[in-house]
Amino acid sequence: MEKRFIFKENVRIYDTDAQGIVHYAGYYRFFTDALEQFVKDRIGGTFPLLEDGVWFVVVESNAKYYKPARVGDELEVSLSPTLLSEKVIKFNFGIERSGELLCDGYITQVALNESKWKSVPIPKKFVDRIFQKKS
Amino acid sequence: MEKRFIFKENVRIYDTDAQGIVHYAGYYRFFTDALEQFVKDRIGGTFPLLEDGVWFVVVESNAKYYKPARVGDELEVSLSPTLLSEKVIKFNFGIERSGELLCDGYITQVALNESKWKSVPIPKKFVDRIFQKKS
Amino acid sequence: MEKRFIFKENVRIYDTDAQGIVHYAGYYRFFTDALEQFVKDRIGGTFPLLEDGVWFVVVESNAKYYKPARVGDELEVSLSPTLLSEKVIKFNFGIERSGELLCDGYITQVALNESKWKSVPIPKKFVDRIFQKKS
Amino acid sequence: MEKRFIFKENVRIYDTDAQGIVHYAGYYRFFTDALEQFVKDRIGGTFPLLEDGVWFVVVESNAKYYKPARVGDELEVSLSPTLLSEKVIKFNFGIERSGELLCDGYITQVALNESKWKSVPIPKKFVDRIFQKKS
Repeated sequence: MEKRFIFKENVRIYDTDAQGIVHYAGYYRFFTDALEQFVKDRIGGTFPLLEDGVWFVVVESNAKYYKPARVGDELEVSLSPTLLSEKVIKFNFGIERSGELLCDGYITQVALNESKWKSVPIPKKFVDRIFQKKS
Repeated sequence: MEKRFIFKENVRIYDTDAQGIVHYAGYYRFFTDALEQFVKDRIGGTFPLLEDGVWFVVVESNAKYYKPARVGDELEVSLSPTLLSEKVIKFNFGIERSGELLCDGYITQVALNESKWKSVPIPKKFVDRIFQKKS
Repeated sequence: MEKRFIFKENVRIYDTDAQGIVHYAGYYRFFTDALEQFVKDRIGGTFPLLEDGVWFVVVESNAKYYKPARVGDELEVSLSPTLLSEKVIKFNFGIERSGELLCDGYITQVALNESKWKSVPIPKKFVDRIFQKKS
Repeated sequence: MEKRFIFKENVRIYDTDAQGIVHYAGYYRFFTDALEQFVKDRIGGTFPLLEDGVWFVVVESNAKYYKPARVGDELEVSLSPTLLSEKVIKFNFGIERSGELLCDGYITQVALNESKWKSVPIPKKFVDRIFQKKS
């Protein structure tokens, strides 16, 4: 079962470009910040470099932009994970400002054994805590 | 009709992260570099801020990652545009290293009147030159 | 009189590079985050774009690096401002991890009238609040 | 003896911020691009990760900003190195647009043995080629 996680973010001047709004690639910073905090809160490790030589690498990223964000804006980034297979997890994001949806998207990641650079099953402990399964 | 444009890129140290490979959002830098050079070569203006107050803003971005790139790699970024409507254009990208596809994706942009922040038809001159129509 | 402000920061994967440590230019993100939060707390506006058309532009940046920071590190960024002239302010930063100094440096900024792009005296209200002068 | 190296750069939309000009930290991208190309031209390796486990890490960065650069600007970045000690090298940069100086600064780097993370003398071959000494 999926749970929703909320991360608060401030738009900084370096997130913006000469159009006066957040640069399209800047929203991926917001996705990443929310994701790293989410894993830290649930599990305590350092994402995407977990202990035991398991790393998560990104295989797809996507964002749709509905309304622009500007410097000083306070954003709420929501995150909900979906397990696509035993090796692949999709993190879905929504970015709101005062309840208005500005952007949504996802990052899909696969677990790797970092010394062999081969995909591996996501550790059970990671899956259990990410999805808050009772044990 | 679509034409293919090739832009040569070098992977820099700041494109990489602690996994030793290009950070997923770094590929959008390569997409953007190719796109701005493409428009400059075809039309001569400064994309995404065209003359006459027409700006292009991004409404969707997507990338799929097949193989990692590393610092010092020499990349070939190919670009082909597709006109989705009179206001919306999609730029499709592929990134290769020595003929091997590392990443592909797209950026979809809509034309705006920047003072009113309202979508407008893409100027005919822009469309003609981007798609190299005979006049 | 100067007051010390502390901002807590998390090192993210995008701050690092293939050396496994924070990229040298990444520390300027930490400086900027602390500075924007500092002004927001003291004054409430959106730095570096203040109301009344006063903007702050950077005229010098400097950082010295003593120890590397890594993804997942929790940092404390301290900030103390110095008024160099009626138009110029220097923000001094130190970055510590568990009490160990990793980096220090500064950003020097000048106040501008943004429509004329000419330097102007820093507004008195800004100076008073930044330096917490009694009125 | 120092030699001057020139690298041509294009200002991209992601280099700019909501002030309509290049963000102060963006100039370090131009410094880095010039430096990596310079080493590649002179020596052929991948800077800052050389062969034989020698890495260069940044111990200081500095930039002074005189005139703003904007999206689409074509810049000339000049580089001249100075050997500060057998382990430390300073790279000095100047950024011009149509002969007008916009920014100058430097990056100081120390050579490390990457497995021990200890400073080491810069390899003689590197010094000879960087400074184009006759052998």
